[in-house]
Amino acid sequence: MLVPALYLFPVPLDNDAPVGRSLPPFNLEPLREIRHFVVEDIRSARRFLKKCDRDIDIDRIEFAVLDEHTAPEDVAPLLRPLEEGNPMGVISEAGCPAVADPGADLVAVAQRKGLKVVPLVGPSSILLALMGSGFNGQSFAFNGYLPIRQPQRGAKLKEMERRIVRERQTQIFIETPYRNNRLIAELTASLPGDRLLCVASDLTGEKERIKTLPLSRWKQEKLDFDKIPAIFLLF
Amino acid sequence: MLVPALYLFPVPLDNDAPVGRSLPPFNLEPLREIRHFVVEDIRSARRFLKKCDRDIDIDRIEFAVLDEHTAPEDVAPLLRPLEEGNPMGVISEAGCPAVADPGADLVAVAQRKGLKVVPLVGPSSILLALMGSGFNGQSFAFNGYLPIRQPQRGAKLKEMERRIVRERQTQIFIETPYRNNRLIAELTASLPGDRLLCVASDLTGEKERIKTLPLSRWKQEKLDFDKIPAIFLLF
Repeated sequence: MLVPALYLFPVPLDNDAPVGRSLPPFNLEPLREIRHFVVEDIRSARRFLKKCDRDIDIDRIEFAVLDEHTAPEDVAPLLRPLEEGNPMGVISEAGCPAVADPGADLVAVAQRKGLKVVPLVGPSSILLALMGSGFNGQSFAFNGYLPIRQPQRGAKLKEMERRIVRERQTQIFIETPYRNNRLIAELTASLPGDRLLCVASDLTGEKERIKTLPLSRWKQEKLDFDKIPAIFLLF
Repeated sequence: MLVPALYLFPVPLDNDAPVGRSLPPFNLEPLREIRHFVVEDIRSARRFLKKCDRDIDIDRIEFAVLDEHTAPEDVAPLLRPLEEGNPMGVISEAGCPAVADPGADLVAVAQRKGLKVVPLVGPSSILLALMGSGFNGQSFAFNGYLPIRQPQRGAKLKEMERRIVRERQTQIFIETPYRNNRLIAELTASLPGDRLLCVASDLTGEKERIKTLPLSRWKQEKLDFDKIPAIFLLF
């Protein structure tokens, strides 16, 4: 019998890879028993469950949606099955739930109610990129998306630059994939040429590439990351 | 045949748990083929390899040590086997190599030399704690150990508090386990009572506990974390 808790299930970053590429076998144990899932998207959650275990009986599973459209007051009621003693699962779109997705609000409510939360091991593009970058792993910050508009965007870049220099703090951020090349051009134009940029793309996939170079070299090489899922690190 | 690269192998956080608790089966494929490992401690690396695969022939493996005593000029030569075309592995003590251990220097040299780096998926106490905390996962910073002495320690706490309030940035840090209780007392004494503290201990282990409460409640409850491996988050 599974301990009633909110189990957080990471999802592979690469759809084409087998689940054993990035998930521990242990994760499948609670996955098989849980009947109540909170998911970002039902269709892809079903696909994920079937990929983990072909024999899973999807029709016995209840899905509730938590996404960016969910009103704050609708989050707490999602936990009712757990409050009634049933284990629950959270499945996000890719990577680790509650790190850069709406799951965090649900976990916050669970903590407030004193419910047990069990995060499971899985792939995080933030952590894999940090490991592969060679940058400072004793001090780092994940900044999510940079502000889109000026002057906020320029100010954010300046603040990150300041924290790299003064605090030796690695700065990690993401961009909408179709803007990747523009972002790299912007970084090479506005930061010192000896500042190191790491771009980590297609993590855990066949085309995985993790490249650290000074910005002066990025300027020369003009590598193409257009529409490729990537994460950016400066140090 | 394994692609020559520097493979970064995470190690379970909990020695007693089976490797399938926190490592994907995929990790064992490169692990079995590699003959050259850079490790923090040879004895525990051997134990880890044997635990992953009892049939692994340890005597065929060459270990080189990279720890906090390694001189900076001695790091680059460690990569010689890879430069000669042999895949290499990095094994740290627990968690993900190069995140809060000396492996990052080795990865930095590999990147400088244009050598391929492959980070593998595994447990990170930072990420598991963040997932389980319910705190903001869109913006967070890992600060390593807090400064031990005043006034640096007080200034660091004040700066973290400022970043929580102004930037909604989750602050993550660690402490030497025998000082855990003292740290919690210090936080409750010096930060606002409604500030949330999460303490995540024994992650992935039998006694795993992830607890988020306002500092005012931590003060009342006086939970004991003496000598227990824990990680701290404020939000």
